Amino acid sequence: MSLEKLSAAKSFDGVQGVYRHRSTVTGTDMTFSVFVPAHEDGEKLPVVWWLSGLTCTHANVTEKGEYRAACAKHRLIFVAPDTSPRGDDVPDDPDGAYDFGLGAGFYVDATQEPWAANYRMWSYVTQELPALLFAHFPADRKRQAIMGHSMGGHGALTVALRHPERLRSVSAFAPIVAPSQVPWGQKALGNYLGPDQDAWRRHDTVALIEDGARFPELLIDQGADDQFLEEQLRPDLLRKACADAGIDLTLNLRPGYDHSYYFVTTFMADHLAWHAARLI
Amino acid sequence: MSLEKLSAAKSFDGVQGVYRHRSTVTGTDMTFSVFVPAHEDGEKLPVVWWLSGLTCTHANVTEKGEYRAACAKHRLIFVAPDTSPRGDDVPDDPDGAYDFGLGAGFYVDATQEPWAANYRMWSYVTQELPALLFAHFPADRKRQAIMGHSMGGHGALTVALRHPERLRSVSAFAPIVAPSQVPWGQKALGNYLGPDQDAWRRHDTVALIEDGARFPELLIDQGADDQFLEEQLRPDLLRKACADAGIDLTLNLRPGYDHSYYFVTTFMADHLAWHAARLI
Repeated sequence: MSLEKLSAAKSFDGVQGVYRHRSTVTGTDMTFSVFVPAHEDGEKLPVVWWLSGLTCTHANVTEKGEYRAACAKHRLIFVAPDTSPRGDDVPDDPDGAYDFGLGAGFYVDATQEPWAANYRMWSYVTQELPALLFAHFPADRKRQAIMGHSMGGHGALTVALRHPERLRSVSAFAPIVAPSQVPWGQKALGNYLGPDQDAWRRHDTVALIEDGARFPELLIDQGADDQFLEEQLRPDLLRKACADAGIDLTLNLRPGYDHSYYFVTTFMADHLAWHAARLI
Repeated sequence: MSLEKLSAAKSFDGVQGVYRHRSTVTGTDMTFSVFVPAHEDGEKLPVVWWLSGLTCTHANVTEKGEYRAACAKHRLIFVAPDTSPRGDDVPDDPDGAYDFGLGAGFYVDATQEPWAANYRMWSYVTQELPALLFAHFPADRKRQAIMGHSMGGHGALTVALRHPERLRSVSAFAPIVAPSQVPWGQKALGNYLGPDQDAWRRHDTVALIEDGARFPELLIDQGADDQFLEEQLRPDLLRKACADAGIDLTLNLRPGYDHSYYFVTTFMADHLAWHAARLI
């Protein structure tokens, strides 16, 4: 698996890189970023996976996420994939909507045409990209955490619930917790996975918990003034599912904060410190 | 002077706002950002002015500058103007070059046509915008600092040297210190101010110091791997001018760092702490 380095810049005594590779899973070129803190030769560092939200590429969190200071302090590798396949040959939402298609892969493997050929972000973030990361970077496979924002919070939570054996911790900012029950998710899962809602449950945090999936503890920060709170995010549904299942949920509702990176960055260092304590 | 709020988001317990107003100085609409930390009613906070580099608007540092955590901690207002007038009627570099015209005002009042009507960034950042700021925000006129990056470092240093009475402190990242002696500056000052190089000296940090301008101390961080170091930035010229003039210059040459925000953000918190200590 070869990797093309698009850029690398020293930052906080580490290196912020951006890389491109040919993905056999999506059938496209894929771009992602990796921050590697300063470390000794041969040393392996814990990894934090970051899954981004609707409309984002790797670049949003890389430029605006304010994670490098904390990652340098705690010596965490930080990996940010794209949110969908890209390219002229990749089908997009017929109306060019922001909430489906390009920039909106929802971290599933599509089964429906014309999406099934390229939209395989589940396999990409859980198999292909991890293999690439551990082959090319000083990353410790035994110490992984995952986090994300909005659609990426959905991705992080579903990956953690389906792969608790490989992740030490999971957290999210303003996640979509019940895509089967909200407009963004119903559109995306319906198009990618088809009308049979049984197939949606493996990509729905609340449904996964209802069906028995478990992760020891979840950390979530949510802006109380988030414009998508009531219609799309529904943390109340997650609170009930966790209570019923006995999952230790820390849900911080933050008065006055919205859905933007101005909110995310405010609590980014807290989340990374929390992950770091679980990645020792 | 009326002000239009384009956006406001809670961040680090303060408010990051973006504002637009009609500038009588530039004859255009101008956009700028202000971060105001949490504070008591009626309280006035110290101000840090940030002047940005070539190609930037207010948005670059606002999104990528990673200043809010430190500004919230030290309770500093952070103001980021644009780098030039903007608009369809504003003349631009005839070749559309990045280093002159739109995004490249160089913080001077142009005297040459067709630039003189709009390109009056010196008056904008030293007179009109300060008046607007103190009229609309809880900013303490007696506690001001200024800093900037590249062309904005040039702006910050020249403003401080010509207005030491109003600024407590000045710092810069990778500043253009001697525009009269480097290609970026020769092009810009020649076009905006005309061929008479005497007129350039009041917008050239090294020349201002040679001509007797003084500021008690200067803090500069400079990446040693900055791609513009030798041709455009020339910190050696500033070092000599400060040594000759007895100005206390702290010039941190940072091995491995380039010219980007990946470099700037690494040392942003240090600079803001340094300013905060002088703004008490």
